[in-house]
Amino acid sequence: MPHTAQRLIDLLFGRRLANREGQAEKIGWLAAVPAMGLDGLSSSAYGPEAALSVLVPLGAASLTYIGPVMVPIIALLGVLYLSYRQTIIAYPSNGGGYTVAKENLGRGAGLLAATALMIDYVLNVAVGISAGVAALVSTLPALQPAILPLCLAVLALVTIANLRGTGEAGLLFALPTYLFVACFLGLIAFGLWKLVAAGGHPAPIVAPPHLGRGTEAVTIWILMRAFAAGCTAMTGVEAVSNAVGAFREPVVKQARLTLTIICGLLALLLVGIAGVAQAYGISAMDQTQPGYQSVLSQLAAAIAGRGPFYFVAMASVLAVLCLSANTSFVGFPRLCRLVAEDGYLPRPFAVPDRRLVFSVGVGFLAATAGLLLIVFGGITDRLIPLFAIGAFLTFTLSQAGMVVHWRRQGPSNLGRLAINGVGAAVTGLALAVILAAKFLEGAWITVLAIPLTILLLLSIRRYYDRLDASVAAVGPLVLGDIRPPLLLLALQQRSQVSDRAIRFGLSLSPDVIAVHLTQLGGPEADEDGGSRLRQEWNETVVAPLEAQGIKPPRLVLLPAPYREIHAPLLTFIAKLRTEMPERRIAVLIPELVTRHWWERLLRVGRGERLRALLLKHANSDLNVIISPWNP
Amino acid sequence: MPHTAQRLIDLLFGRRLANREGQAEKIGWLAAVPAMGLDGLSSSAYGPEAALSVLVPLGAASLTYIGPVMVPIIALLGVLYLSYRQTIIAYPSNGGGYTVAKENLGRGAGLLAATALMIDYVLNVAVGISAGVAALVSTLPALQPAILPLCLAVLALVTIANLRGTGEAGLLFALPTYLFVACFLGLIAFGLWKLVAAGGHPAPIVAPPHLGRGTEAVTIWILMRAFAAGCTAMTGVEAVSNAVGAFREPVVKQARLTLTIICGLLALLLVGIAGVAQAYGISAMDQTQPGYQSVLSQLAAAIAGRGPFYFVAMASVLAVLCLSANTSFVGFPRLCRLVAEDGYLPRPFAVPDRRLVFSVGVGFLAATAGLLLIVFGGITDRLIPLFAIGAFLTFTLSQAGMVVHWRRQGPSNLGRLAINGVGAAVTGLALAVILAAKFLEGAWITVLAIPLTILLLLSIRRYYDRLDASVAAVGPLVLGDIRPPLLLLALQQRSQVSDRAIRFGLSLSPDVIAVHLTQLGGPEADEDGGSRLRQEWNETVVAPLEAQGIKPPRLVLLPAPYREIHAPLLTFIAKLRTEMPERRIAVLIPELVTRHWWERLLRVGRGERLRALLLKHANSDLNVIISPWNP
Repeated sequence: MPHTAQRLIDLLFGRRLANREGQAEKIGWLAAVPAMGLDGLSSSAYGPEAALSVLVPLGAASLTYIGPVMVPIIALLGVLYLSYRQTIIAYPSNGGGYTVAKENLGRGAGLLAATALMIDYVLNVAVGISAGVAALVSTLPALQPAILPLCLAVLALVTIANLRGTGEAGLLFALPTYLFVACFLGLIAFGLWKLVAAGGHPAPIVAPPHLGRGTEAVTIWILMRAFAAGCTAMTGVEAVSNAVGAFREPVVKQARLTLTIICGLLALLLVGIAGVAQAYGISAMDQTQPGYQSVLSQLAAAIAGRGPFYFVAMASVLAVLCLSANTSFVGFPRLCRLVAEDGYLPRPFAVPDRRLVFSVGVGFLAATAGLLLIVFGGITDRLIPLFAIGAFLTFTLSQAGMVVHWRRQGPSNLGRLAINGVGAAVTGLALAVILAAKFLEGAWITVLAIPLTILLLLSIRRYYDRLDASVAAVGPLVLGDIRPPLLLLALQQRSQVSDRAIRFGLSLSPDVIAVHLTQLGGPEADEDGGSRLRQEWNETVVAPLEAQGIKPPRLVLLPAPYREIHAPLLTFIAKLRTEMPERRIAVLIPELVTRHWWERLLRVGRGERLRALLLKHANSDLNVIISPWNP
Repeated sequence: MPHTAQRLIDLLFGRRLANREGQAEKIGWLAAVPAMGLDGLSSSAYGPEAALSVLVPLGAASLTYIGPVMVPIIALLGVLYLSYRQTIIAYPSNGGGYTVAKENLGRGAGLLAATALMIDYVLNVAVGISAGVAALVSTLPALQPAILPLCLAVLALVTIANLRGTGEAGLLFALPTYLFVACFLGLIAFGLWKLVAAGGHPAPIVAPPHLGRGTEAVTIWILMRAFAAGCTAMTGVEAVSNAVGAFREPVVKQARLTLTIICGLLALLLVGIAGVAQAYGISAMDQTQPGYQSVLSQLAAAIAGRGPFYFVAMASVLAVLCLSANTSFVGFPRLCRLVAEDGYLPRPFAVPDRRLVFSVGVGFLAATAGLLLIVFGGITDRLIPLFAIGAFLTFTLSQAGMVVHWRRQGPSNLGRLAINGVGAAVTGLALAVILAAKFLEGAWITVLAIPLTILLLLSIRRYYDRLDASVAAVGPLVLGDIRPPLLLLALQQRSQVSDRAIRFGLSLSPDVIAVHLTQLGGPEADEDGGSRLRQEWNETVVAPLEAQGIKPPRLVLLPAPYREIHAPLLTFIAKLRTEMPERRIAVLIPELVTRHWWERLLRVGRGERLRALLLKHANSDLNVIISPWNP
C-alpha cells in the first residue's frame, strides 16, 4: 500500500535498489575518458580565464605574458601525468590521496590529504557551477541578474540526479564531453588556420572588447599570481588514479591509456586556448558587470561568429562545467565513506541509502557548496583564490606517499621513486607559489579551514573510541536476576487500547501497577480527581480478574500539578526503587497507532510523548514497553 | 540538570506553571475597561479612516458625507450596547457567541458563530497590527518601505508575549489604553475649542493635504460602502459579554458598568474624530504611497502640531493597535478550546501548555495572521473588506440566540426579547449591507472561508466520533491467553547494550530469539554473512546459559538485500505466526540512549528507526519493547 509521499519519492529518486544491483559494469577507456576526465577537461574552461583575469591590469600587455604563464603550467601537467601513471601501477584498485597518504605517511598525512580533498571537492562544485552559469550568462546576457538563483537551481538538479544514483548516466557524460573537446579543438584549429591564412593578423568575426593601456607594470608577483590562478586548470587530474578499480581488464593498461588521453587533450586545450586568445586579442572580463563575456565565449565568437555553431559550443561548455560538479558528487561521498569507516566522520556517512547512494555525503556536499555559492554570490572569480590549494596539497601528499611506497618496495624501483620524488617536489613548490599568491585574496580561508576540519575529524574519532570502549562486552554473558520485572501501565482511561496493554502486561509479569495521572488538563482530563476511573477499574478490571484467581493490577492515582507526564512517574519509580532496590522496572505504554500523517494533528499523543520523555530522562534501569493498538 | 535549550526556553517563555497558578484574580471595571475594551476602543483608530478611504473619490465633498455615514454607525453601536447588556444578565459566566448560539439555536448556528468569530479573530490581529504599523509609518516616514517586516516583527513579539501567558500584563494594557483615550478625547476637545474660537474656520497647525475636486459623484452605493467600512469600528464590542466570569462581585453590575464605559468612550471617539476631521478638512490617504499619513496622525498634527504631544499621541495609537491584536490572542485560543472540547477542533487545541496557555491556538492564530499579513502586504486598506463580516455575523447569531433564550424564559421577558430582537434585525441588516458593499472587494474570501471551515469542523468531529466508538471498551475486561510472548531480540552485535537486553528479555519470557540482519551495509556491517557473530554468540551467550540450565536465545540470521531493517523482520514474524498462530509476539530493541542533541548526528540510529518503522508498519499484534542503555 504505497502512500502518496512514497510514490513521490519513487518518482523523484527512483525505486529502492537491491545490494546486488550495486555492482557497476567495468568500463574501458572510451567510457572512462568522459566519466573520469570531465573534471580535468572542463578545468580548461576556467583555468586560462583565471590566469588572464589576474593579468587584466597589464592591459594589452597581458596577452604577451599569457604564454610565459602557461609554459610552467603545461610542464607541471606533464610531471603530474608521469607521477600518476605510477600510482596506477602501485594501487590498481584505489589510489586516492587519502589511501596513499594514510598507508605510506601515516594517520596525520592521511587526514590532511582527506581534508584537503574534501575542501577541494566542495570548491569544485561551486566553481564548476558558477563557471557554467557564467558561460550561460555570456550567451544569454539577459540572465545576468539571475546568476545566483541559476547556480542554486543547477546545484539542486545535480543533487537530485546524484540522489537517484548516476549508474545510468554514461551517455549523459560522454556526449557533452566529446562535444566540448571537438568544438574547442576544432575552433582552435580553425583559428590557427585563419591566423596562418591572414599572415599572423586574423580579423575576428565578432571583435573582443578593446584592451586599453595597462594600469600596472608587469612584475614577478603578478606573473606568480597568474600562474597560481591558472593552476586551477589542473584540478581533476587525479580522478583516474582514484577509480582504477572501475576499469575492465587489462586494468592498468586501460587506466594508463585513459590518463594519457585526458592529459593530452587537456594540454592541447590549454595551449590552444592561450595561443588563440593571444592571437585574437582576447582577455578576461569582469563577471559582475553587465555585458560580461567569458574567454571561451569571446573566442568562439571571434573565430566562428555568433552563428548556430557558437551556441552549440557554448551549450557544451555549460553542460561540461555543470557535469564537472558531478565529479565531486561521485568522489566526495566515496571519500567520506572511507573516512567514516575509519571513524573520523559520523557513521551515517558510510550507510548506503535506498538507491545505494551515500546520501548523507551527497546532502552535505550540496549544503556546503550551496552555502559557498550564496556567500560568494555565484561569481567564479571570487571562488578561484580558495580553489586549487586542496588539490595541490593532495597532489604533494600523494606523490610523497608514493616515494615512501617505492622505497619500501626495494632498490629496483629507484627510477619510479625518482619520478614521484620530482612530482612531489614540483607540486609542493607550486603549492607554495599558489599559497603565497592567493593568500590574501581568500586562500587564508582554506588555510584556516584545513586544521579546523582535522581537529573535528580527530574529536569525532575520539568520541567513537570512547563509545566503543564503554559499549564493548567482554567475556561471557553474565545473566544475574531474571525474575519478571515490575510493570507500570500508563493508564489514561479504560479502553480497548488499555485492555490490550493489560493482557500483554500480565503475559510478561504478574506484577502490574496501573498508574493514572490526574490534573493533567486537556480534553480527556478527569475533573473528579480520578474517582470515577477508580470505580470503573474496580468493577470492570479488578472484579473479573479476581474471579479468575488472577492478581489484578493495582490502580495508583498520581497528581500532576505541573501537567508534566514524566516527572510524577519518575518520582513514583524512584520511590518504588527505594522500596525494592533489586527489582527491575518497566513502563508499559498503550499507544494508539496513527495510520496517516494528518492523524498526528488530531491526537494529543501523550503516549508518544511519554515514551520520548522516559527514554530521554530515565537512566538505563528503566525499560519501555509499547503496546500498540490500531483502530 | 537543565540543558541550554531548556534554559533558553525558560528565559523566553518563563518557567513552568502549576495548575493552581492558573486561577486569575477577579477584576473590577477599572482593570476591565483596558483589558476588554482595547479591541473596541482601538477600532476607532481605523474605523473612521476606513469610511473616509471609501469616500476619497468624492474629493472635498467626502467631508460633507462623513457625518451621514457616521450617524447610523453610532445608532448601531447603541443597539449593540443595549443588546449586550441583556446577554450579560442571561449568561453571567460566559456569553460568547458560540455558547449562546449553540445553546439556543443548535449545533449548526453554534458552529457558524464559532467559525465567524475565529475568522474575525484572525483578521483582527492582521488589521490591528497593520493599522498600528501604519501609525508608526505616519510618524516616521523613513520606515515606509519596511511595512511588512515591521508587521511581522510586531506579530512575533505579541506571539511570544502570549506564549508566556498574559497574566501579569495588567498594567501593560491599562497605561496605553487610558493614554490613548485621554490623548484623543483631549485633542478632540481642544480641536472643538479652536473651532469655536476661530468662528468655525480653524487654521490647522500642520495643514493636511489639499482635497481636490472629486472624480466621482455621490451615490447611495458609495455611502453604503463607506458605512460598511466604518462598521469595522464596532468590532470588539462583544468582548465584555465573552468574559463576564472574570469580574468580581457584584458580577453583573461590574460587567454592565464596564460595557457602558467602553461603548460610551467609543461613541465619543467616533463622533469626535469624524467631526474634527470634517472641520479641519482631513481625509484618508493611500497607505501604499510614500508620505502616507493616517487620519489620526493628520488630526493630531493639525490640532496640536508636530511637537512632543504629537509623538506621545501617536505612540499611544501604535501601542493600542498592537495590543488590540492581543485581544484576539486571548479570545481565539479560549474559543478554540471550547470548540475542541466539543470535538470539532483537534484535541491539542484544548491542552494547556507549560505556561497554562493553549499554545496550539496561539501558534495557529499567529501563523494564519502572519499569512494574511504577507498575502496582503501588511496594508490595512486591503484587509478591511474581509473584516467585520465575521463580527456582524456573530452579533446577529448571538442576538437571535438571545431572542430564543428570552422566549424560553417565559412571557415576563417580552421587553428584553424585543430589545434583542431589534438588535438581531439591525445587525442582520448591517451584515447584509456590509456583504453587498464589500463582496467584490474581498468579502467573498470570508464568505467562501466560512462554509469550508464549517465542513472541516464537522469532519473533525466525525473522525473523533468514529475513533471513540472503535476505542471504547464495553463490559468487563476479557483476559484470554496470558502465556509469555515470543520475544525477538533485534541484535546488531554483541555488546553491553545487547547483554542488557538479553537479561531483560529472559526476565519477561523464556522464549527469546535473537535476530540479526546481514547485508545491511554501512560501517557496522559484517562482511562474512554473520558467521563470526554466530561463533561469538555460541561461545559467549549460548554456552554460559546452557551451563546454568537456562534455555539460551537462538540466533537467526536474516539477509536484508534491500537494506530495509523492518521488511525482513516482518516477513520472519509472518512466518512465525503461521507456525504458531496463538502465540503473542514482541520485538525487543536494545537502544543506545543519546544524551546530547549532537550525538544524533554521530549515530546511525538503527534502533530508533526500527522502532518507528515497526510501529508504523506492524498491525496491533506486534508489541515493541525498548531496552535502553546509557554509555
